[in-house]
Amino acid sequence: MLVVPLIERKRDGGALTPEEWSALVAGYTAGRIPDYQMSALLMAVMWRGLERSELAALTDAMIASGQRLSFEGWSTPRIDKHSTGGVGDKVSLVLAPLVAACGVAVPMMSGRGLGHTGGTLDKLEAIPGFRTDLSLPEAKAQIQKLGVVLIGQTPEIAPADKRLYALRDVTATVEAIPLISASIMSKKLAEGLTGLVLDVKHGSGAFLPETERGVELARTMIALGEDRGCPTVALLTAMDRPLGRACGNALETEEAILALRGEGPADLMDVTYALGVEMLLMGKVERTAAKARQRLENALSSGLAAEKFEQIIEAQGGNPKVVDDASSLPQAQAVEVYAAKQTGVVTRVEPRAIGRAIVAMGGGRTKVEDTVDPTVGFVITVKPGDKVLAGEPIASVFARDPAGIQLGFDALTRAIAIGDRLVERPLPLVSHRVTKDGVETLTPGDKKSAPARKK
Amino acid sequence: MLVVPLIERKRDGGALTPEEWSALVAGYTAGRIPDYQMSALLMAVMWRGLERSELAALTDAMIASGQRLSFEGWSTPRIDKHSTGGVGDKVSLVLAPLVAACGVAVPMMSGRGLGHTGGTLDKLEAIPGFRTDLSLPEAKAQIQKLGVVLIGQTPEIAPADKRLYALRDVTATVEAIPLISASIMSKKLAEGLTGLVLDVKHGSGAFLPETERGVELARTMIALGEDRGCPTVALLTAMDRPLGRACGNALETEEAILALRGEGPADLMDVTYALGVEMLLMGKVERTAAKARQRLENALSSGLAAEKFEQIIEAQGGNPKVVDDASSLPQAQAVEVYAAKQTGVVTRVEPRAIGRAIVAMGGGRTKVEDTVDPTVGFVITVKPGDKVLAGEPIASVFARDPAGIQLGFDALTRAIAIGDRLVERPLPLVSHRVTKDGVETLTPGDKKSAPARKK
Repeated sequence: MLVVPLIERKRDGGALTPEEWSALVAGYTAGRIPDYQMSALLMAVMWRGLERSELAALTDAMIASGQRLSFEGWSTPRIDKHSTGGVGDKVSLVLAPLVAACGVAVPMMSGRGLGHTGGTLDKLEAIPGFRTDLSLPEAKAQIQKLGVVLIGQTPEIAPADKRLYALRDVTATVEAIPLISASIMSKKLAEGLTGLVLDVKHGSGAFLPETERGVELARTMIALGEDRGCPTVALLTAMDRPLGRACGNALETEEAILALRGEGPADLMDVTYALGVEMLLMGKVERTAAKARQRLENALSSGLAAEKFEQIIEAQGGNPKVVDDASSLPQAQAVEVYAAKQTGVVTRVEPRAIGRAIVAMGGGRTKVEDTVDPTVGFVITVKPGDKVLAGEPIASVFARDPAGIQLGFDALTRAIAIGDRLVERPLPLVSHRVTKDGVETLTPGDKKSAPARKK
Repeated sequence: MLVVPLIERKRDGGALTPEEWSALVAGYTAGRIPDYQMSALLMAVMWRGLERSELAALTDAMIASGQRLSFEGWSTPRIDKHSTGGVGDKVSLVLAPLVAACGVAVPMMSGRGLGHTGGTLDKLEAIPGFRTDLSLPEAKAQIQKLGVVLIGQTPEIAPADKRLYALRDVTATVEAIPLISASIMSKKLAEGLTGLVLDVKHGSGAFLPETERGVELARTMIALGEDRGCPTVALLTAMDRPLGRACGNALETEEAILALRGEGPADLMDVTYALGVEMLLMGKVERTAAKARQRLENALSSGLAAEKFEQIIEAQGGNPKVVDDASSLPQAQAVEVYAAKQTGVVTRVEPRAIGRAIVAMGGGRTKVEDTVDPTVGFVITVKPGDKVLAGEPIASVFARDPAGIQLGFDALTRAIAIGDRLVERPLPLVSHRVTKDGVETLTPGDKKSAPARKK
């Protein structure tokens, strides 16, 4: 196969055929096409984009590079949730057991943190003994037994994506919407789902900060899912400030456990319920949003959701006692309280500064092979719009040593701005709902009845 | 050095600093930066272009990767000519001895044919024994003795260009004007020139067919040369039909010899004289175009130019007898005459079809390592606008065997169109003169007095 004419065609704005994409992915995965040709092609894709048929062919080829979960003859609905990633985003840990407790199976395959955003696997592994590396047959058996599993990408699932992602990471070709979409959807569509809910973050701490780009990413992934027979819906949620109070792996796991016990912060619960409602509707266990919400609230208040999380932990080798006693999670060596520098209104809590500080303090990765200290991080108790008094405690820093505490204090000083009044209105927590039929703008307090804004 | 942020910056339309370009070229040449990062960066350059300062830094880094010819203390002007390449373009073989015979030294470093265009080195090597692989000291000694040398790129000159060009060739990143300019000029500026004349082809058979792109390429290379103290001028010449009559290595060498003996076709002579005038003016051996033209014509008619070519051939190991007796050049096994299919006006002689046929017949390259049969090719005696009668001989095909003859006939049928009248006016032979001060459009028959069209 001649690769240069294909790169030329994409470079000049043309489209490749499905057969050509299929041959490219197969040839690259088999090592017949060198990295330097694939990276030039990927940069040409960043430049020119992909047509819908090309994106479909690329995604199909990536799925076809590996195995897929099959649940033939098992009628339980299987719905996963994917988040594009943010700071303080521990929704998966609450949502997966909660939705599973409502009768919808959740075969959840998550990633690790990289850069300023955290990853669900790292949060789960803060629980002593917890295994995220189940084999595909183990994962399948657990889904059918407990209705939920929380694992990492197995080597059998979309190996082409794994190779392509590693190349994109070192060639500045990560941020292309079609490539992001193909990467996410090739993994999700291999899970044997009956539906998928996407949490697309926007705002300064998101991977794609601009709302329009978030909507475009949502629409692209929805088209991919729907075209392949997997109903897909997306919510755009705010990442112009951290979600919840805790940022850092063990701290976030603790906050997720509190949430499952009914003590979660309001913003975390709102996002979790909004996504959960979509999953229950998609799984057809409820017919209206109000009933779905009620069912989720019942599963939480009855303790069923927390119990489901205990079952998951036990099944995956961890110590389920953490659900009752969070002090059995690893604890930071050094903890210090951070106080407001002045009296006024919190105008900004910048998530990127927080996320980067966690990496600098040893709690995140700059390279895939870095190990992570689960104990470090922040608990930030204020949100943009809150009034504070000079000297009032507004955050805690959790670190390995006094140097880490200093890094954390410096980051908080950069991240938290206090002024006379809010300069910029924070993003609505859940601002848009995107389906195959179009984009709805959601009005706070009246989330489902706003007229659809079709694009 | 972190390469990803540099690729990102270029991808997003930013500029790299001279230090960053220098480190990139040095790191790549030393093997510290992998091909896959460089190819992604090159594609980003195709997308975003290079600012003038970036192009200068890239070119300087490529020059600095090798040695440069130095003629310190030697006052003879040294002017080279570079052509962007075409079909039937044997100008260098006529021009180099002609200009050298007029007292301007010509240190000419040429390339091989690749794709549909021919290369000067292949034409020279049609002369039995001719060596184009002189070492740098040999080349320098010959320039100072004969005033002219005709060689290929030595390993000492711009090795970074050689590596980058090989990568560009397999990653569809050849056709970017800044990359073409840096590649050409890094070699030319290492030759120790006092001036450079560029022959930029435009029209369907040119590397960059659009006139505007040709002008842009000329302006880019001129800026590079002038900024580095090398006065540079460009002529745009027609490549919507082959230049001269002969196409194919030995056939073109024979036509060049005929031209040096005063029997060259008019279009070849016009282009040769136009470029030669620029070289003599630039070398300051004449002060007006008319006097320069007269001096060139005298050098030709007196036999001095042909004698200079004999000296070159002898000095570089070839048999100088070919200048008197062209039959000592290698001869094709099979020759057939091609006749006009109908009566009418020749509306088109398409150079790409001719160039590609020569490759198919064994006289060109699709890969760098291909060997070339010097004997195959065409002599086409008609030009667009000529009237022909059905059955009139208008071309000859030179091939290895009857199959090659058939390939040649098929190509001529595709390349030569005959109709009632000219549909499209052929490009003027020499249409634009580009200098650091701007672009002049040249009116045929009054080439130097047209008012400047500044851009």
